[in-house]
Amino acid sequence: MEKVLIFGHKSPDTDSICSSLVTETLAKHYGLDAEAVRLGELNKETEYILNHLGVEAPRKIGEVVEGQKVILVDHNEKEQSVDGREKAEVMGVIDHHRIASFETISPLYYMAKPYGCTSTLLYEIFRRENIEIDKQTAMLMLSAIISDTLLLKSPTCTEKDKEAYSELEKIAEVNAEEYGLEMLKAGTDLSMYSAEEVINLDAKEFSEKGKKLVIAQVNTADINDVFARKEELAFAMEKEISDKKLDVYMLLVTDIINTNSKAIVLGNDREVVEKAFNKKIDENDSMFLEGVVSRKKQVAPPILETL
Amino acid sequence: MEKVLIFGHKSPDTDSICSSLVTETLAKHYGLDAEAVRLGELNKETEYILNHLGVEAPRKIGEVVEGQKVILVDHNEKEQSVDGREKAEVMGVIDHHRIASFETISPLYYMAKPYGCTSTLLYEIFRRENIEIDKQTAMLMLSAIISDTLLLKSPTCTEKDKEAYSELEKIAEVNAEEYGLEMLKAGTDLSMYSAEEVINLDAKEFSEKGKKLVIAQVNTADINDVFARKEELAFAMEKEISDKKLDVYMLLVTDIINTNSKAIVLGNDREVVEKAFNKKIDENDSMFLEGVVSRKKQVAPPILETL
Repeated sequence: MEKVLIFGHKSPDTDSICSSLVTETLAKHYGLDAEAVRLGELNKETEYILNHLGVEAPRKIGEVVEGQKVILVDHNEKEQSVDGREKAEVMGVIDHHRIASFETISPLYYMAKPYGCTSTLLYEIFRRENIEIDKQTAMLMLSAIISDTLLLKSPTCTEKDKEAYSELEKIAEVNAEEYGLEMLKAGTDLSMYSAEEVINLDAKEFSEKGKKLVIAQVNTADINDVFARKEELAFAMEKEISDKKLDVYMLLVTDIINTNSKAIVLGNDREVVEKAFNKKIDENDSMFLEGVVSRKKQVAPPILETL
Repeated sequence: MEKVLIFGHKSPDTDSICSSLVTETLAKHYGLDAEAVRLGELNKETEYILNHLGVEAPRKIGEVVEGQKVILVDHNEKEQSVDGREKAEVMGVIDHHRIASFETISPLYYMAKPYGCTSTLLYEIFRRENIEIDKQTAMLMLSAIISDTLLLKSPTCTEKDKEAYSELEKIAEVNAEEYGLEMLKAGTDLSMYSAEEVINLDAKEFSEKGKKLVIAQVNTADINDVFARKEELAFAMEKEISDKKLDVYMLLVTDIINTNSKAIVLGNDREVVEKAFNKKIDENDSMFLEGVVSRKKQVAPPILETL
């Protein structure tokens, strides 16, 4: 039997990596020859988690070959997926995002729910199908939920995420809040990254009405730490804009302690961001967004609707 | 609370109508103010079923208004959906087709599996969530499965459809084969339809690579009965081609007894159908397709791939 590749989005975050690994476990339970892979480098947070659990990182792949069977987790949009996906056969998708630029020739398994985290959907599958959850699998799912919901504080967090979090905390026999804070803090250490790397740690590309935009996000315990590097970050963003012919590049710097964000916004069409939030970009190319922590729920929808 | 409208595709078939009604029951179980509606006239088969069960047909709607909350069943493609769908808020989709020209701004519930019938997915939800299935609901789902799988004989029929069929047969306390044959035969009575009506009973529009095509299907107990009206059917098809600027119009006439089809194929780009099946269209604009009964599995994919 051909091997099925399972992966999350480009610039993988913790949910993309952990949910790929957990989906591999699920797929193997059903007798599939499956392998979790990744489309980019691990971020510091995910590195911390895998080290902590003694789990090996999935193999990195560049593109897929003709006819490759794949399962997508935590994404569906073409721009966020593997290079060459149009040649692959998508067997299934497990996701919690909007659906866009996704198209197949044949029927497939597609499971999406508007939850805070892909791993919450996976948790439901384990429960429903009565599959035992071992400690390591519980920790992977718990880590993904902590990451995507910022310890249940993000507005994307649903009751279902909270339920899964509590249950997984019990199975993993861990203090989720203590572990979660360590994990999130590990992810905010940007000191070893170049500006190019920082803006690409968790960058998602969107296409809408012929416009191409990137909304990137980094977490921090102190917004000023990141803005101390504003000039080099802006320089790296301008380079991406010109290399990838982008209309807008927005970098969300999210304070995970106080749950606010400050964004750097560049690009010829950046007034779309001003319209979306009814707020001016200041002379420092920046915009403070009170209470905003979720790209998926609070940032992408108003911008895409304004377009 | 706003009402949620639930509907299947245009030119609704039995699965689209029955699955809408069953989804209404499910939605109400979860406290939603939901109403099954339909996008077109009932066919003879569905009429037979609703009469037999004493169930009222869903209300017919033309288009939806700005912000209308909707749940789609048995379809997702824009061309097959309600007029004005771009203005609606799609809360959920339950489907068993490929995904194409479907896009949302926000995350949603999406459940698709490559089964023979939408109602088989609905049956799984009832089972999983431990919701009691009353006799009438069982008959609606059973009817949809019989219709979509031609009494389990279609190549689209999966083990899951067969399981649901047997279980629903028990709940409904009916001889599914006897009932099913009556039901399918009721659907083959085309005598009261004009040629325009026949070609629109179950017509699906596809867009691919800038080409627009319609693949329509009618069931019959005798292919010759339908081909006796070939000239008037072809005339009606030519009119649709010119009115809707179609590149291909294909009418599949499917023999539900011997499980074969004969197609009438018209339109400037009809050689795409010849290429897809590696077979010539004869001087009567026709092509016999041995063993072909499923538009979704045996007809649409080879044509879309050839495009």
